[in-house]
This record gives sequence, structure tokens and C-alpha cells, in this order.
Amino acid sequence: MEEKIIPDIVVGRLPLYLRALQQMEQEGRHGTSSQELGERLGVSAAQIRKDLSQFGEFGKQGTGYQINYLLTKILQILHLDRDWDIAVVGAGDIGSAVARYRGFADRGFRVAMILDNDPNKIGQQLGGFVIQDSNHAEELIQKAGIKIAMISVPAHEAQEVANRLIKGGVKAILNYAPISLNVPPGVHIQYIDPAVHLQRMTYYLA
Amino acid sequence: MEEKIIPDIVVGRLPLYLRALQQMEQEGRHGTSSQELGERLGVSAAQIRKDLSQFGEFGKQGTGYQINYLLTKILQILHLDRDWDIAVVGAGDIGSAVARYRGFADRGFRVAMILDNDPNKIGQQLGGFVIQDSNHAEELIQKAGIKIAMISVPAHEAQEVANRLIKGGVKAILNYAPISLNVPPGVHIQYIDPAVHLQRMTYYLA
Repeated sequence: MEEKIIPDIVVGRLPLYLRALQQMEQEGRHGTSSQELGERLGVSAAQIRKDLSQFGEFGKQGTGYQINYLLTKILQILHLDRDWDIAVVGAGDIGSAVARYRGFADRGFRVAMILDNDPNKIGQQLGGFVIQDSNHAEELIQKAGIKIAMISVPAHEAQEVANRLIKGGVKAILNYAPISLNVPPGVHIQYIDPAVHLQRMTYYLA
Repeated sequence: MEEKIIPDIVVGRLPLYLRALQQMEQEGRHGTSSQELGERLGVSAAQIRKDLSQFGEFGKQGTGYQINYLLTKILQILHLDRDWDIAVVGAGDIGSAVARYRGFADRGFRVAMILDNDPNKIGQQLGGFVIQDSNHAEELIQKAGIKIAMISVPAHEAQEVANRLIKGGVKAILNYAPISLNVPPGVHIQYIDPAVHLQRMTYYLA
């Protein structure tokens, strides 16, 4: 299955299916259908069936999906059948919120390290961690074998931080800094910029 | 121009062009090209020219774009030639970070109201606001004429909050709660869920 190239847009919908299935499981549900999933997510049942069929055969025509089975499969596909350590660089408001956020643990992620370059913050406690010096990011990341990082530093510092992280072995970056970053092939990047999300919607407002 | 239906994916790239142009302007630059913009953003020059051409003629073949002119035009297209008031519902870690965030002001948005349903938070100060009762969201939003809201409440409360906001007149929601919401046609929604962004990348990590 892994050899087939799956469009990134399809991969991007799997976490949403996963989230909905986990919510159904929490509600004590055992089975569902592409119709029901589609209604919860605002996509068509056909879309869901087509997306899932790219990865295998997970349900039976007419009987729908076993939630637990489908959950397990999607977790495997997304490599979430293990936990991933994350380094957070930038201990400002966003970085601090991330460090305290309890919602990652049951979704495959564990904040393992918090870095900042502010001498007043280095050595301080934050969310159970001692903030470490981001000028040593490369060595710290490498030593810890961390592959995933979040960047929550000011825009003008973000590219340099990304470069250090990538040198240290990071392969996936979630960037909260409001700037586009250049990363080499093989390094994945996702962006969270609330202003960008908002600006995309104002287009539609009169 | 407004009558033509522009694909949402094209609309979604305009805020990124805007952000890059604003950064160039801050750097004291006056002119740019689709090539340079493309390199900054990791998209092709042809893509940028094609996207912008959907909205009009903003540059001259061979001489590129005047940054200030293109900026002004994109701001107009995205209805950012005015400021938009935002209501933030949920005064937890995320809501508090948003309320204190200074990056919205120069990007078209102004946090105008913070709501929560926790009796211990209602009446408290946060980022210069007095937290108001989210059980009265509908009236408060309506009275203030607010069209845009951010939801940063627990997942199980988010749909009810959305319903109230929409009844009050909200037309665009940025949802930080980790759940998909149902909104009627004409209401726009965007999602920020860091775990979803991270899970999309772990697919590519061995």
C-alpha cells in the first residue's frame, strides 16, 4: 500500500476522519457508515468511501464500518500507532499554550522539549519542562532524536530556527510564525496563522 | 469581477500573497515579481500570475508588480480595506492568547469582545476586555453587529456556541475546538487544530 502515491489532499482528510471516529468511540458507539461520517464532517459519503478505498478495504457494502477497526487502521496509516515527541521552539503565548495543552497526549503527540533564546526564559519552568536554549537546538534535537517541531517565534527568527531544527534531524514542522519558510525536500511543513484563516473568509463577507 | 466565481483554493492563497507583500513592504521594497513571490512562498511563478489574473491585471509583463499597488488591490479583494471586529468565545489558554495577540491589528482584525460561560471568569479582565457571559452571545453579537467569531471552547460545547453566534449574525467562524461543526449555507468556517496538522505530516514520517 505504501508504494502507491496518495494525493496529499486525501492524506489531509484522514486526521478528520480519525477525529470523528474517536469522538464516536467516546460516545460509546461501535459502528458507523460513510453517510454518518460524511454528515458529521460536511463531506459526501462517496468522498469518504473513495478516500478510504485508497488505503484498503475497511468496511462491508451495506453494513458500514466497525469504528474500532477503522480507527486502528487509520492510526496505522498515519503512523500514529506510536507516540511522537515534539520540540516547541518559542515560549511566548502560543508556545506556552501548546506546552500546557492536554489535547495532544491522546492524539499521538507528547511535548518533549521547550526551547527559547531569551536569557530570561532559559532555565525557567513551563508546563513541567525547563526551557532550554534554542541556540543549541541542533544538538538538543539530535540527541533526543526528535523528528517533529513547532515553531512559535517571531516571524523574523523563524527561518533560522527552522534551519537549526532541520540540521538536528527534524522532518516535520508546524509553523505558527506568520511567514512562509523554505524547507528542503523531505521536510514537511504545515502552517497555522489565524489571520490568514480569517482573511480567507472576509473575501466572502460583503 | 465579483460576479465571477473564483475557486476557494485560489481565494485561500491570496492571504499568503498579502502576507509576503506586507513583509516586502516592511523591508522597504517597492517592486517585486511573480518569480520572487513564488520563491518566498514555495509556489510557482505561473501559479501566482494565474491566481492574480482571476481578479484583474495588476502587473506589467516584464516589469513585475508594484508592491504597494498590488497590496492595495488584494486588501480590497479580501475586504480588508476596513477593520473587522471579532468576538472570541472561550477564555481558556487559546482564547487568552488570541485576546493578547497583537498581530491581528495590522492585518485587518480587532478583538472586540471576549465571552465565556464560566461564572468565575465572567466579569474578569482579559487583554483589556471584561469577559462577558457566552450564554448571552446571541444578543451581544447582534447588538455589536459582529460578523466574525473565534470559538475556543471544549469540543462538546462548540456546536451550541456556533449556533448561538450564527443566530446573532456571525457569518465567519474560526474554530479552535477539535470538532467539525455544522453551519448553514452562507456561514463560512475555518479550522485550527494543531493535532490534525501534525497527524497529516506523520503519514510521511517512517
